[in-house]
Amino acid sequence: MKLHKKAVMPKGFKCASKNCGLKDGGKDLSVFCSETRAYAAGVFTKNKFPGAPVILGREIIKNGYLRGIIVNSKVSNVGTGTEGIENARRMAIAVSEEFNIPENEVMMSSTGVIAKQLPIEMIESGVKGISENLEDDPLVGAKGIMTTDTYPKALSVSVDESVITIIGKGSGMIEPNMATMLVYIFTDAEMETPLLDTMLREAVHISFNMLSVDTDMSTSDTCIIMANGLAGKVDEHRFLETLKFACVEMTKMLARDGEGATKLLLANVNGARTEDEARVIAKSIVNSPLVKTMAYGADPNIGRVLMAIGKCACEVRPEKTEVRINHRLVYANESRVDFDEAEVRKLLNDDYVEITATLNIGDGCATAYGCDLTEGYIRENAAYYSS
Amino acid sequence: MKLHKKAVMPKGFKCASKNCGLKDGGKDLSVFCSETRAYAAGVFTKNKFPGAPVILGREIIKNGYLRGIIVNSKVSNVGTGTEGIENARRMAIAVSEEFNIPENEVMMSSTGVIAKQLPIEMIESGVKGISENLEDDPLVGAKGIMTTDTYPKALSVSVDESVITIIGKGSGMIEPNMATMLVYIFTDAEMETPLLDTMLREAVHISFNMLSVDTDMSTSDTCIIMANGLAGKVDEHRFLETLKFACVEMTKMLARDGEGATKLLLANVNGARTEDEARVIAKSIVNSPLVKTMAYGADPNIGRVLMAIGKCACEVRPEKTEVRINHRLVYANESRVDFDEAEVRKLLNDDYVEITATLNIGDGCATAYGCDLTEGYIRENAAYYSS
Repeated sequence: MKLHKKAVMPKGFKCASKNCGLKDGGKDLSVFCSETRAYAAGVFTKNKFPGAPVILGREIIKNGYLRGIIVNSKVSNVGTGTEGIENARRMAIAVSEEFNIPENEVMMSSTGVIAKQLPIEMIESGVKGISENLEDDPLVGAKGIMTTDTYPKALSVSVDESVITIIGKGSGMIEPNMATMLVYIFTDAEMETPLLDTMLREAVHISFNMLSVDTDMSTSDTCIIMANGLAGKVDEHRFLETLKFACVEMTKMLARDGEGATKLLLANVNGARTEDEARVIAKSIVNSPLVKTMAYGADPNIGRVLMAIGKCACEVRPEKTEVRINHRLVYANESRVDFDEAEVRKLLNDDYVEITATLNIGDGCATAYGCDLTEGYIRENAAYYSS
Repeated sequence: MKLHKKAVMPKGFKCASKNCGLKDGGKDLSVFCSETRAYAAGVFTKNKFPGAPVILGREIIKNGYLRGIIVNSKVSNVGTGTEGIENARRMAIAVSEEFNIPENEVMMSSTGVIAKQLPIEMIESGVKGISENLEDDPLVGAKGIMTTDTYPKALSVSVDESVITIIGKGSGMIEPNMATMLVYIFTDAEMETPLLDTMLREAVHISFNMLSVDTDMSTSDTCIIMANGLAGKVDEHRFLETLKFACVEMTKMLARDGEGATKLLLANVNGARTEDEARVIAKSIVNSPLVKTMAYGADPNIGRVLMAIGKCACEVRPEKTEVRINHRLVYANESRVDFDEAEVRKLLNDDYVEITATLNIGDGCATAYGCDLTEGYIRENAAYYSS
């Protein structure tokens, strides 16, 4: 499977973005739509303080169909009570009127500061006339949903005659437990809702749910898939495998662009007692501030990996455990392998650090995706609200 | 209860420290001893990669008695296999010979870099003659056990005619699940082993086990208490209450001096469904990188507190939840309280930030202790191994 060199919207999908006044500069409002009704499925944050768009979105997605999605950045519409729910609904109504589509086929998301009311009139004015400016380039839509991302993120991959395109944003407050911050997947493949939902969950399980930038689970995490069928039927198995591949690739993009990140940190765990334990340990490695700063500093302090494995409530036997960094064995037989520190430092200096822990206990395996922890994360987050 | 202005060793306890060559400069070896055999209890890390001193220490503490403790800093003797166990034993033998006390009444700890063998000969030479240099000042012993701590930590508090003195080190890799990095408690109260053990566990439960600098559980966490009885019997209830008070005070000292920290971050959770859920939520607040950077930046981004509460697998009802920062109500009735941002910014600017979450569901309450997250943490940990 290969990503397209340039992402494209699948047949019948278009998008637009603009500045509607929420941000001082830059795009802050995006709309995505399908010219025909699309089968749709979605997963949302498990945070107990979900945003108003998540509360309402969970109801809307039950229909199993969508025509459009509206997203604003800068203010997240979380912790905003009944006024927040009403404002989320007004976002859907605005799109419904502009595009002449049913209100209950419009999904909405908001991302940004928590516990502030949405300036809803700005968004309503912004939507007016936006249907005149639809484009085929997914990066246009990706621009309006960015917060602290350093670049807009979109990718496309083909399955038979159809295309799967993913648009995502990430950066901070990212350890999703259903989906990552905001990810929208569009395809012109024909794939009906119950199956689409099952496939989405399977893909999210190994991709976005294994992503962590900072252990903080957002109140807005949303991942939506829309399949409008304009490219006809595709092989189900190939579709699922391609969807998984594409979701993992987007996960890596989001990890690599985590707030302040300079590199992708990937943890493989093999030979764990169960898949669940492998997932816990892989997450523990990419979440450990000491492993993350080790990766940042390219410091071959491999004991921190042992610590991050050992702190999990999982079966671990030190005498059986092996650790590799970018495929170089560094720990085995209860002792550090006698490695050349300069060599390991060079491996860690790469912008891609892959830590592999082989537990030699069972068949459980998993991969988690994260990034290093740098002064940049501190700088961005010590004053995010005010900036 | 009040801390002594100056910490002292209780009757019959003395300590010494020196540089034995592990560090380029500064103390790296400490010895603590009682002139008579003391009842003793201890708790250790739950990390699955425990250091050799923890593996051996768990056996030694079963005797219920101790005479001495030896501690080195700079190298932790973790991930060192059978050679590590043998080196830990040699530390105990060296003290046993120097002080003419039984080998199985000597506890040992090592702290510092993981997965390097201990330069044991340096330590053995260092112990020779150290019994000639014993002192009454606990800060002398505290100096030899420091790694990235910015100052040596000791405190004393009285119970009846006896004194409880705690010597501790903390700083990084700190989210203990049995005890904090290294904490030694000495008392001249008469308190026999089974009861001493129960009391230690009760005190650790509300103090060191509620401390987190960076979510990373050390492989060396050890907390030992020795009671030599030279001050006679004390009231059991008062002893326990005083021990708890002293452990909480040491916990605060360790939190406030976390790596790179500029302030103490304290989270109270009241009205949770159970005490366990209150503990999980309080830990989630002090562990959230986004709450920690908010405290650092004194940025009134209170939505992050909601996020940290909501991400726990605990019962939370947004409509019942109230949040206070240094006693100022900032969130209630599903909305941000209309507060003066300058005022909240001023509260957050204090070197003591107390976040209180009242869930109004049940009777569970807990307090967790942490610190802010700053560029200093990144700087210290991006090159700890090499420095």
